[in-house]
Amino acid sequence: KRLRPMLLVLSARACGRDKLDLSVYQAAAATELIHMATLIHDDVVDEAATRRGLPTAFALFGKSASVLSGDVMLAKAMDLLARTGSVEVIRAISGAVVAMAEGEVREIETRGDFDLAKSEHFDILRLKTAEFMAACCETGAILAGASEAERRALATYGLHVGMAFQIIDDVLDYAGNPAATGKPQGTDFIEGCATLPLILLRERSNQDQRENLARLFGGARYECDAISTVVRLMRSAGVLDEAERAARAHVTDAVSALRALPENGARQFLEEVTELILARKS
Amino acid sequence: KRLRPMLLVLSARACGRDKLDLSVYQAAAATELIHMATLIHDDVVDEAATRRGLPTAFALFGKSASVLSGDVMLAKAMDLLARTGSVEVIRAISGAVVAMAEGEVREIETRGDFDLAKSEHFDILRLKTAEFMAACCETGAILAGASEAERRALATYGLHVGMAFQIIDDVLDYAGNPAATGKPQGTDFIEGCATLPLILLRERSNQDQRENLARLFGGARYECDAISTVVRLMRSAGVLDEAERAARAHVTDAVSALRALPENGARQFLEEVTELILARKS
Repeated sequence: KRLRPMLLVLSARACGRDKLDLSVYQAAAATELIHMATLIHDDVVDEAATRRGLPTAFALFGKSASVLSGDVMLAKAMDLLARTGSVEVIRAISGAVVAMAEGEVREIETRGDFDLAKSEHFDILRLKTAEFMAACCETGAILAGASEAERRALATYGLHVGMAFQIIDDVLDYAGNPAATGKPQGTDFIEGCATLPLILLRERSNQDQRENLARLFGGARYECDAISTVVRLMRSAGVLDEAERAARAHVTDAVSALRALPENGARQFLEEVTELILARKS
Repeated sequence: KRLRPMLLVLSARACGRDKLDLSVYQAAAATELIHMATLIHDDVVDEAATRRGLPTAFALFGKSASVLSGDVMLAKAMDLLARTGSVEVIRAISGAVVAMAEGEVREIETRGDFDLAKSEHFDILRLKTAEFMAACCETGAILAGASEAERRALATYGLHVGMAFQIIDDVLDYAGNPAATGKPQGTDFIEGCATLPLILLRERSNQDQRENLARLFGGARYECDAISTVVRLMRSAGVLDEAERAARAHVTDAVSALRALPENGARQFLEEVTELILARKS
């Protein structure tokens, strides 16, 4: 989907500089390389056989090639970022890469925790997904020579887009069509990853229901019809809609942040991207 | 041993700037973090249980924690390098990190190749070890505000030091005392890694001897007394001494390169470091 480089390039254009120099494209390529490297390393960590219905690098080439090719991508990305000549860009992106790795570690540490606090969950989303999107948008602004206010606005936009993106991702894990998402329904539940739909369902449940859910939560006790039961409970409690409203609230904040920018085609496109994120099915 | 940060700091001092600012120490810390990250990822790739006689992170914490903690270290290193504010430093180091990852890939690709060409072997040493040491030395020079000639001199010094370091490492693999090196004798031979001692022995052998060696080379056909046979052959053919002479030739080139620098205590120390590298037993 190339979402991250697209956000970066659009952010640069939205700052009113239509003629982009090479550095914008170097940085955009670097963000996609970094994203790919983290996916490849995550698949090693999770020993994932497929991603979006296709075999992972881990499945095709094994652990060694996956670890090393991820490292090559990270190093090439760092080299591309250095070529932009902007220390601010390098700091923004490298800070976000630290956050991503820390978010992934915290997600693994809290795996299996049915009682994961909502605030901790949102922290993980921010670290794992949103800060990098914020850094992509901010990078576009920096390279376009934007004002401090424009930079902050785009970073805020990217942060909220990232939160919305990940919340929708987590809703699709329960409510999506496996043929479209490329992964079995309820993977997060089976793997013991507490995301917003489950946290909201937990909050709406009485003690008996919570104990039942906790018993089913996590792979070891996975039963074939457990997921359809959980999704039915989620639908009747209205928590999938509620999670989508949470994503929409982030989109509203994202779009508000854009008001600090001049009105132009790229800003318009950044607004429309948020609707695509809310409407996506895969 | 902290060799890489030491080379960096000494290189900065050797350029005649005694008062080092924070950026030198940030860069030095970054090089050690990068070195540690590559060791941790290499141990995942090799499924190594021990390194220098101690359990690896892979053995203690498993694959997931090792991949992720390596990534965190790389990202933190990138962040530290960005804090130095020098794009030249970031480019020098990130270029070397690309080289290291590519060297590791080429080493794995050529594993098991008894007939590895000497030139290809030296290329791998350069990519895997020497370019990063060159970048460490060059970084010290850049941060000290050195002249172009001093920068080039220190990069050349670091490249030759790295080649000498790795050649001695490969000699110790056959001729070292396992109690000092912390790894069994002949690990490279067992793992099918052709290094300089073996390549020289191959060159000195007749066809029968070569076929015998090729048959023993690589883990699958490993026999208990194979290594002692190989080491005995190496000693009688004089190839361990010849490899040491190759390392010494690199040290001579390294020391020559230092002549472009002003005479001072740090330059003296850089000269002495090369003797420690030749004399090391572990």
